[in-house]
Amino acid sequence: MTAFGLNERLAADSHPVCALELCEVRLMNDSRYVWLLMIPRRADLSEWHELSAADAAQLSAEISQASGVLKAMTDATKINVAAIGNMVRQMHVHVVARHEDDETWPGTVWNAGQAKPYEEGALEALRSDLRRELAAGS
Amino acid sequence: MTAFGLNERLAADSHPVCALELCEVRLMNDSRYVWLLMIPRRADLSEWHELSAADAAQLSAEISQASGVLKAMTDATKINVAAIGNMVRQMHVHVVARHEDDETWPGTVWNAGQAKPYEEGALEALRSDLRRELAAGS
Repeated sequence: MTAFGLNERLAADSHPVCALELCEVRLMNDSRYVWLLMIPRRADLSEWHELSAADAAQLSAEISQASGVLKAMTDATKINVAAIGNMVRQMHVHVVARHEDDETWPGTVWNAGQAKPYEEGALEALRSDLRRELAAGS
Repeated sequence: MTAFGLNERLAADSHPVCALELCEVRLMNDSRYVWLLMIPRRADLSEWHELSAADAAQLSAEISQASGVLKAMTDATKINVAAIGNMVRQMHVHVVARHEDDETWPGTVWNAGQAKPYEEGALEALRSDLRRELAAGS
């Protein structure tokens, strides 16, 4: 049994937002989308079916929370939710606000074009807004 | 309030497997992957945050069930789970068994290459196996 630790690549690609009951919430450093990563704080977790029944329910509740916050904050056309993990096996759920005028609409965001890192002021403002809205919804 | 009805495009692209407590389970007609669609039987449902708390928990349990069945049946390298819906807004969750030697690994399966429809015998055998395994796990 190993302790939970955040995968290095997920850490490098994103910034911390807040901790919910089960998940670490992080913001991908790609200003083309408001794109969250939700990482359950469980060691050696890769697949959805490896979650306990209680954790599976909690994860779904936290996805709902994040999805609702992104929809309200960004007036998104559609929220995309995905646990893929072909590259990074540590379980992480993408929750992405999509708009009809975004760069890859209606395609998916994975491995599509180049990430556009945030400018520092914009990043801090967005993280602060996300932290406030996610706290309000929990 | 309208009644639940399956979107025409989802129906055209897939074959019925079984009904779980919340979701219709269907098999995408693409023999490159064992690829399930899970469609909650709720009218006017598009986004994860529109699920009731009870439905969100049930959906997650059914995703776990399908994910575990696909992993065991196919010895998948990774199960991919996603609710995207940019093209078809009726909520549907993809649960896809991925292998390192499949056509689009480690990329995602959406809009990648051409679907290869099943031959009828193979399709019926797989649907029957899926139905049995999903019933055993529920």
